[in-house]
Amino acid sequence: PDDNFRNYFSLNTLNRCSDKRKDRGWLANKINDANTRFVVFRNLEVLATKLPKSSSMYRYELGKIEMKPIETILACNPVTIFLGLVQENRQVPLTFKEPALFAVDLSTMSEEDVRALSPGSELLPGYPAAMQLLPAEAGIFAEARSMLAWHDRYQFCPTCGSSTRLEEGGYKRECANLECRSHKGVHNTCYPRTDPSAIMLVVSPDDKRCLLGRSQRFPAKMYSCLAGFMEPGETLEDAVRREVEEESGVIVDRVEYHSSQPWPFPASLMLGCIAHATTETVKIDETELEDARWFNRPEVVQMLTRQHPQGLFVPPEQAVAHQIIKTWVRRTANL
Amino acid sequence: PDDNFRNYFSLNTLNRCSDKRKDRGWLANKINDANTRFVVFRNLEVLATKLPKSSSMYRYELGKIEMKPIETILACNPVTIFLGLVQENRQVPLTFKEPALFAVDLSTMSEEDVRALSPGSELLPGYPAAMQLLPAEAGIFAEARSMLAWHDRYQFCPTCGSSTRLEEGGYKRECANLECRSHKGVHNTCYPRTDPSAIMLVVSPDDKRCLLGRSQRFPAKMYSCLAGFMEPGETLEDAVRREVEEESGVIVDRVEYHSSQPWPFPASLMLGCIAHATTETVKIDETELEDARWFNRPEVVQMLTRQHPQGLFVPPEQAVAHQIIKTWVRRTANL
Ligand SMILES: Nc1ncnc2c1ncn2[C@@H]1O[C@H](COP(=O)(O)O)[C@@H](O)[C@H]1O
Ligand SMILES: Nc1ncnc2c1ncn2[C@@H]1O[C@H](COP(=O)(O)O)[C@@H](O)[C@H]1O
Ligand SMILES: [Mg+2]
Ligand SMILES: [Mg+2]
Ligand SMILES: [Mg+2]
Ligand SMILES: [Mg+2]
Ligand SMILES: [Mg+2]
Ligand SMILES: [Mg+2]
Ligand SMILES: [Zn+2]
Ligand SMILES: [Zn+2]
Repeated sequence: PDDNFRNYFSLNTLNRCSDKRKDRGWLANKINDANTRFVVFRNLEVLATKLPKSSSMYRYELGKIEMKPIETILACNPVTIFLGLVQENRQVPLTFKEPALFAVDLSTMSEEDVRALSPGSELLPGYPAAMQLLPAEAGIFAEARSMLAWHDRYQFCPTCGSSTRLEEGGYKRECANLECRSHKGVHNTCYPRTDPSAIMLVVSPDDKRCLLGRSQRFPAKMYSCLAGFMEPGETLEDAVRREVEEESGVIVDRVEYHSSQPWPFPASLMLGCIAHATTETVKIDETELEDARWFNRPEVVQMLTRQHPQGLFVPPEQAVAHQIIKTWVRRTANL
Repeated sequence: PDDNFRNYFSLNTLNRCSDKRKDRGWLANKINDANTRFVVFRNLEVLATKLPKSSSMYRYELGKIEMKPIETILACNPVTIFLGLVQENRQVPLTFKEPALFAVDLSTMSEEDVRALSPGSELLPGYPAAMQLLPAEAGIFAEARSMLAWHDRYQFCPTCGSSTRLEEGGYKRECANLECRSHKGVHNTCYPRTDPSAIMLVVSPDDKRCLLGRSQRFPAKMYSCLAGFMEPGETLEDAVRREVEEESGVIVDRVEYHSSQPWPFPASLMLGCIAHATTETVKIDETELEDARWFNRPEVVQMLTRQHPQGLFVPPEQAVAHQIIKTWVRRTANL
């Protein structure tokens, strides 16, 4: 992709300051600092405000709440994540006086009470509503939502079944059972989980066509890249080959990495690739796909620009699938 | 990297046949099939046999056991994973008559009894001993060991704390509590966990030097690429930038993907990159590193070939770090 290209959900102007996570005093001070702001969630829906001039598809801004109005509820220890310090320019060293941002889970409050924290705000459910957030804030949302989704689902120790408690600014959950094996050695049970997934545009042996498919769950007439979760003990490249063969019967040889995208529903890491096929016969896995077929570049251009005669289209620019497709279409050699 | 290049732990001649995992009858038949073989583990150590002519660094072959000698212990339901069917050539469609390979956890047996299953065999502890396995079998080991490590650590449902039971040939653990939220909607608690990690060779602004570091835990005189776990809500490229800055204070701009490697200790996915620095001042994070400094190409060649005057060296060819370093050294423009 071109040099300045950035996937949606990737722009995050925070410095995570991971070395501060273990410093409880520092974190407690920051929570009480007048410059600190809180990004608020309720049942994994984020508090956001519609921008006055909303002609763009990016028409919501994250609600950023001061500590005062949530002081009493913070005293009840809701899940609170230290997201980082605002750092607009990475070349300028941090002073640690920069405003801090936290995420807080206010699911114990009513929807009305949460919305009242910021006049005119709404609670945006996850996908696709959250893709209307300003791109400059989408990475903050991605960090916050995937962390809160982890705390929501991982309240018990998978090794011994005991309850766990939040540590390190939310970046760890420690088992309450002092005898538990999780307190010794190298393992991953107490750290946030991220699921690597392969997403790939399969291109034909002559590079003139690409394979797009649709699952039953897609909006009508939308086609996209194939995708699948990586499995233990395989490379990204082999995951691409395996998922393409499983879902479409097509054999892939060379795999080119394109770009990556965090996908916080709940916590995937999309690893985008272009996959070069050596065969063309399509035999779809009907449990996963409803259709998959080859499209030539002119048709894909129509789908990207929403000018396809049958109304077919691909996902919007917020999806890495869109960006991979665009990269391939722009390689005009065969157009 | 060059086209035929393959990282260690990536060669796996099995077809995982994920569509068969839900078919209990098919799996039960395969377990009892005379052509089926079992890769055997005890406390995550794998049964392996030293090859007679063992001049190479790859001197162990996986033990592959028939069903008969472990029939009685299989009746006690040890953790058993369906690894796949042997498929030497991906171009030839499967007949499903191919020999199957399973992994089985025999930790309830004594070390002597396990070793007696295959005369002259040994139990290879994980890292670094397992890097002596034949490269053609290292991917099978990676799949098996990361799956067994997951079953070992994830016996309880992280959402409700109930016990879980193995399903889908070992690729799923389902919560025994029928009321549990894990039975509804999209989530990841019942699937194997893979931790994406960034591993990167940082190269200087003039591309003449690279940054190598060492942690206290390394063998004396070994230097390697910096590395770190990816965090929720970030891209691979940003994880590279964050970890480099955290560990060395160096600022990275452009990030080039190199290749990926499964690292089954216990279940990482190494995403190898070349990271282009814009600054040179090194300030190490002393909790993680003991040293990090810039090396020029001639010195790195000495380290790769173990001819460095002070005896410094880099990891062996089995590590993706070695491969990334080699790729960069071979870009001879500035050599
Ligand atoms: N981490 C995970 N999260 C959700 N589903 C998973 C995960 N790992 C494997 N799966 C399974 O993968 C299916 C989706 O297929 P795919 O995305 O093509 O791999 C789901 O229906 C699950 O059965
Ligand atoms: N999945 C994980 N497995 C093990 N350690 C983790 C994981 N995620 C975060 N960590 C932390 O990361 C540290 C290693 O640093 P790094 O590999 O540079 O990110 C460990 O000491 C842990 O505190
Ligand atoms: Mg899929
Ligand atoms: Mg699939
Ligand atoms: Mg899959
Ligand atoms: Mg590290
Ligand atoms: Mg680190
Ligand atoms: Mg780290
Ligand atoms: Zn525990
Ligand atoms: Zn449960």
